[in-house]
Amino acid sequence: MIKTDILIIGAGPTGLFAVFEAGLLRLRCHIIDALPQPGGQLAELYPKKPIFDIPGFPEVLAGDLVSNLMEQIKQFEPGFTLGQRAETIEKLDDGTFIVTTDKGKKHHANAVAIAGGLGSFEPRKPLIEDIEFYEDKGVKYFVKNPEKFRDKRVVIAGGGDSALDWSIFLSNIASEVTLIHRRNEFRGALDSVEKVQELKNAGKIKLITPAEVTGLHGHERLEALDIEENGAHRKIETDYFIPLFGLSPKLGPIANWGLEIEKNAIKVDNALDYQTNIPGIYAIGDVNTYPGKLKLILCGFHEATLMCQSVYQRMNPGKKYVMKYTTVSGVDGFDGTRKEAEKAVVKSID
Amino acid sequence: MIKTDILIIGAGPTGLFAVFEAGLLRLRCHIIDALPQPGGQLAELYPKKPIFDIPGFPEVLAGDLVSNLMEQIKQFEPGFTLGQRAETIEKLDDGTFIVTTDKGKKHHANAVAIAGGLGSFEPRKPLIEDIEFYEDKGVKYFVKNPEKFRDKRVVIAGGGDSALDWSIFLSNIASEVTLIHRRNEFRGALDSVEKVQELKNAGKIKLITPAEVTGLHGHERLEALDIEENGAHRKIETDYFIPLFGLSPKLGPIANWGLEIEKNAIKVDNALDYQTNIPGIYAIGDVNTYPGKLKLILCGFHEATLMCQSVYQRMNPGKKYVMKYTTVSGVDGFDGTRKEAEKAVVKSID
Repeated sequence: MIKTDILIIGAGPTGLFAVFEAGLLRLRCHIIDALPQPGGQLAELYPKKPIFDIPGFPEVLAGDLVSNLMEQIKQFEPGFTLGQRAETIEKLDDGTFIVTTDKGKKHHANAVAIAGGLGSFEPRKPLIEDIEFYEDKGVKYFVKNPEKFRDKRVVIAGGGDSALDWSIFLSNIASEVTLIHRRNEFRGALDSVEKVQELKNAGKIKLITPAEVTGLHGHERLEALDIEENGAHRKIETDYFIPLFGLSPKLGPIANWGLEIEKNAIKVDNALDYQTNIPGIYAIGDVNTYPGKLKLILCGFHEATLMCQSVYQRMNPGKKYVMKYTTVSGVDGFDGTRKEAEKAVVKSID
Repeated sequence: MIKTDILIIGAGPTGLFAVFEAGLLRLRCHIIDALPQPGGQLAELYPKKPIFDIPGFPEVLAGDLVSNLMEQIKQFEPGFTLGQRAETIEKLDDGTFIVTTDKGKKHHANAVAIAGGLGSFEPRKPLIEDIEFYEDKGVKYFVKNPEKFRDKRVVIAGGGDSALDWSIFLSNIASEVTLIHRRNEFRGALDSVEKVQELKNAGKIKLITPAEVTGLHGHERLEALDIEENGAHRKIETDYFIPLFGLSPKLGPIANWGLEIEKNAIKVDNALDYQTNIPGIYAIGDVNTYPGKLKLILCGFHEATLMCQSVYQRMNPGKKYVMKYTTVSGVDGFDGTRKEAEKAVVKSID
């Protein structure tokens, strides 16, 4: 059982920054996210795209913002449970919570902050018979560890950036990469499309278009695929099939936690601390709603900060906390590091 | 008369960022600040000090944050009235406002956002008889335009960073720089103290310590100072006297605008849009208060953003505004510039 002060559900920018504000209050955080890496949408959907409305950054690539936040919070040693979805929550008699993931991992925390963005990103699965049977037996919706595909035959399906980028990346690792798309046209960054063209010309990526995977074969695990290409059917052998048809956000199991929900978002008390109708459970960032709510990253930062203060009060009732400015007081990490402004000297001139 | 959509009082980080969010809504801003340059406390009090709690910046110098914000908003062409204090406000029958500064400059706006930080920074004036008479006649509390002091005799009083830094800077411009401090010890950045020592040794700065300026002389303008040094009195001739004894923030004339004030801060409706008790006047950043308020820059950014949305609704009643993400829609400046993410291409591979 993992124990922490604040269990954060969602490793997007809001959830990550909460670790920093909690750390300033000497509270420890652990983050659960269904995606295999931190960063939420920013890392998964558009890491190379610029964001223009983060205060203080005239322009920042989404992936760089995530790296910066990871750097900013590392001194507070957040724990991560990645690639797992928060499934159930139980409130104990002492007001603390146990959250269990879809893989059975349990987390015990004083407070829970749902920073779930638009929900957990579920892969859009192709409608192929028996596909669930082959999941984890050759069918993968994410590439978590590329080494898994070393010297294996891989078939990727899709026509967007993910399909292009993973085809390029795995062409150096897998023994064979086949890219299948139902159109001849791909939609993605110009240099990705050009790179796939180049690798195709060099014989390092096989391209089958316009085509679709229509069936899966194999006894214990995936061994071959049925393909329909221009109305003709054929079968190709493969070790892995990776359909990359995008992600669709779903509020998921959180919707059944007894929280007040409005238009697929969690209602919170924005007049105070972004707490939900269940004391001790907060919702911050794009996942919450209140009058005048804007789904902006900068709003999530503010909400995360006020949430941390509220958790501090909850864990230290009646204790007077005097906020200090980081420029004045410095920042003490849980890892023993200290950041501080250079002190003024008092020195005579003679 | 200056005309604008949102008149912002205070050019600190919150006021500056408001220009960006207003710009996304096609609203124009004009900013009034009592200090001679934008940036508020960050630029005036600690430009070289790091801040650690701006989201996405593991560390950023206060002065750099201001530069970044100025860069981020420049496409929205904010107007500035600097070195003047907002003095009076008048609400017209049509619900718009006229704000007049202490120098009589008038500004007409649809909405007013007070982003006044801790108040307007007033210089701490030494208790010397007739000092008010000599203000603008040789006595200066700020160095706005260093060229004014070229080939002049300057006496600076104070023992902190401002006194050290301006002594260093003006030693290359003025014909004579004298630094007077009531102690032998100075309190400042080590390299500033060392640099003054060096310039003193080289004869480029005269140092008189421990000493105090006790009197001012001159008919039309300042001509000489009385100095008490170790109990002895003497008179020195000078063209300028610059006492740099720090700034103290005062809510100032805004306190008389009929706004609900609590503990020297302006009460706002944090459950909606950070509006004050006077419709059309908002208060954002450190100057406001509400349950759970934290005086943090990142909170000011959020408050500025919600304020802009509220002003948009106020100016466009009933108009449905659909918020767009800057990554998706790009940013169109009032200066004709456009920032946008590189578009995906749709391209066939053959």
